[in-house]
Amino acid sequence: MVADKRFHSVMHDKPRLLITMGDVAGIGPEIIARGWQELVSFSRPAVIGDPAHLHAAVDLIASAAVVETILELDRSEPSGKVIPCLSGTDQDLSRVRAGRVSATAGKAAYDFLCLATDKLLAGDADAMVTAPLHKEGLRAAGLPYPGHTEILAERTRTPHYGMMLFADGLGVVHVTLHMALREVFRHLTKESVVEKIRLLHEIMGRLVDGAPRIGVAALNPHASDGGLFGDEEARIIQPAVMVAQKEGIDAAGPFPSDTLFVRARSGEFDGIVAMYHDQGHIALKLLGGLRAVNITVGLPIVRTSVAHGTAYDIAGRGIADATSLIEAARVAARLANQNRHEGAKATRSVLNA
Amino acid sequence: MVADKRFHSVMHDKPRLLITMGDVAGIGPEIIARGWQELVSFSRPAVIGDPAHLHAAVDLIASAAVVETILELDRSEPSGKVIPCLSGTDQDLSRVRAGRVSATAGKAAYDFLCLATDKLLAGDADAMVTAPLHKEGLRAAGLPYPGHTEILAERTRTPHYGMMLFADGLGVVHVTLHMALREVFRHLTKESVVEKIRLLHEIMGRLVDGAPRIGVAALNPHASDGGLFGDEEARIIQPAVMVAQKEGIDAAGPFPSDTLFVRARSGEFDGIVAMYHDQGHIALKLLGGLRAVNITVGLPIVRTSVAHGTAYDIAGRGIADATSLIEAARVAARLANQNRHEGAKATRSVLNA
Repeated sequence: MVADKRFHSVMHDKPRLLITMGDVAGIGPEIIARGWQELVSFSRPAVIGDPAHLHAAVDLIASAAVVETILELDRSEPSGKVIPCLSGTDQDLSRVRAGRVSATAGKAAYDFLCLATDKLLAGDADAMVTAPLHKEGLRAAGLPYPGHTEILAERTRTPHYGMMLFADGLGVVHVTLHMALREVFRHLTKESVVEKIRLLHEIMGRLVDGAPRIGVAALNPHASDGGLFGDEEARIIQPAVMVAQKEGIDAAGPFPSDTLFVRARSGEFDGIVAMYHDQGHIALKLLGGLRAVNITVGLPIVRTSVAHGTAYDIAGRGIADATSLIEAARVAARLANQNRHEGAKATRSVLNA
Repeated sequence: MVADKRFHSVMHDKPRLLITMGDVAGIGPEIIARGWQELVSFSRPAVIGDPAHLHAAVDLIASAAVVETILELDRSEPSGKVIPCLSGTDQDLSRVRAGRVSATAGKAAYDFLCLATDKLLAGDADAMVTAPLHKEGLRAAGLPYPGHTEILAERTRTPHYGMMLFADGLGVVHVTLHMALREVFRHLTKESVVEKIRLLHEIMGRLVDGAPRIGVAALNPHASDGGLFGDEEARIIQPAVMVAQKEGIDAAGPFPSDTLFVRARSGEFDGIVAMYHDQGHIALKLLGGLRAVNITVGLPIVRTSVAHGTAYDIAGRGIADATSLIEAARVAARLANQNRHEGAKATRSVLNA
């Protein structure tokens, strides 16, 4: 059958993505069901999660697709009509209710992630895209990880890693992230800024043609206005930019953060190094909105993630938007394709050298 | 002549705006020339500045309008073809070059502002719109004011004043502004937050129908995530919001700043109280861009301003954009019209009570 052969040939050229379901009490199952038609258009996805919850989500959004429980990934034949789902936990999830913190859902999310990681390390797939998990669910299960990244780092034995937010072609890496604003100052060092510039350079180098153009944000208003409002620019950030420039990285700054993002939007930069959480996030949420995705850098595997949480407040109502999941899968597919073409030259090379 | 009479009648219904030229080495003269046709469409503007530099700017942008030097404001008959300019300084500005810091230009900018203020206090016009001045020019002239606002406050003997940025219907007031980020913490008090909520409530109340809906930003990421990342939300901002609510102000928060501006864009709020400079400015520059304007609140006169600087780097080339000046004039005209209708109930009433 000519048609079938062509179909398979095209399919097998697409990267194999593992979609982890995250916390089944959140919007994970329904965004996977909602985004499925898009996902299969550019990848060979398989879900690692709970088939029953996925089935419920498919019903919830009135999709015509069927969930096919698989026991091995190589049995996966995804299509617009078939969602292969590898059962990834031995937890009994039948009593988990949408929008409620649950220890079993927390443990299951952890199990899905570990299984997906192991499959990727074994070479059984090309990249992982994670739906959101819930910190409280993890904690209830006695797994006090702050989030996905720390679990991934531990399981892949990765000492140095980082996160890049990416939306509409712009990558943003933060020097400091989840801490009180007051704490930012003692975490901001020349070394930490240089490290993040390198990280951004490395990952954006895989997403744009040519050398990525990196803009480094100032910490203080007006980039301190020549030292009038603080000295971190002269003492820390400017020296860090110079170190990066000497390494051949196309970095510039520090620039006042309010105009830097406007310049980035107009195409002047491919990546921004932000000094603290809200500096980067205010801009990214306005610029990229739901199109923003998370990329973990430094792991020996490709992993991207939605940039939003479990959204317990709307979970189970079938109204969650799958845009971030689809974008995350798109970026994962792009990075996976590049890895396959370049013989799996992982980001790890630079960071864990 | 019927046509003439109708013309005058319409003209005299429009508010009388004084446009101060600012630093003549900056883009002030050319944005006034560039924006003139728009300004006369909704106001009776007169320039307070230097007629020779304005004439040069008109030539620079190849406008067909002529500059008419006037000696008294009541002789002003602005039209698309005639730009009345009251000479506002005795400085010799003939040697001032575009883009160069100059003591005479600095002193002249100060003189323009003082004259306009006096004219407004005397009731000779309805509002003032200021083109940018240059801090270094002021300093060179021995006038070490940080900017317009301090000069205006001194000359109008106003003890309490504030600044609101306004773009596309959204007003933003900052609790702290031009200081190192490190300094923000000791300036953030319950009282300072309450004061800014009141200020925003007052001014936005004059720009929207009904009670303005005010969103107050958090200081820390995720609004501290329940105290995990800092305590300023629980200790300072939340109590301040409660005080404002008890006064009948429609204020809510503190909200994580990265999603707050997205919510404001979608129409959920009329005004935002930001905790520090870049928090508000990153969002406003992305949202409003050149349409952003500055409104000084608390003065006994109406004053708005462009939200940009002198742009020495492009001054004298005829490429500067007049959008912010036009928007600033539009807001000034709106506030002036309202004052005229309400019998000059100035913002001062609340702030200097």
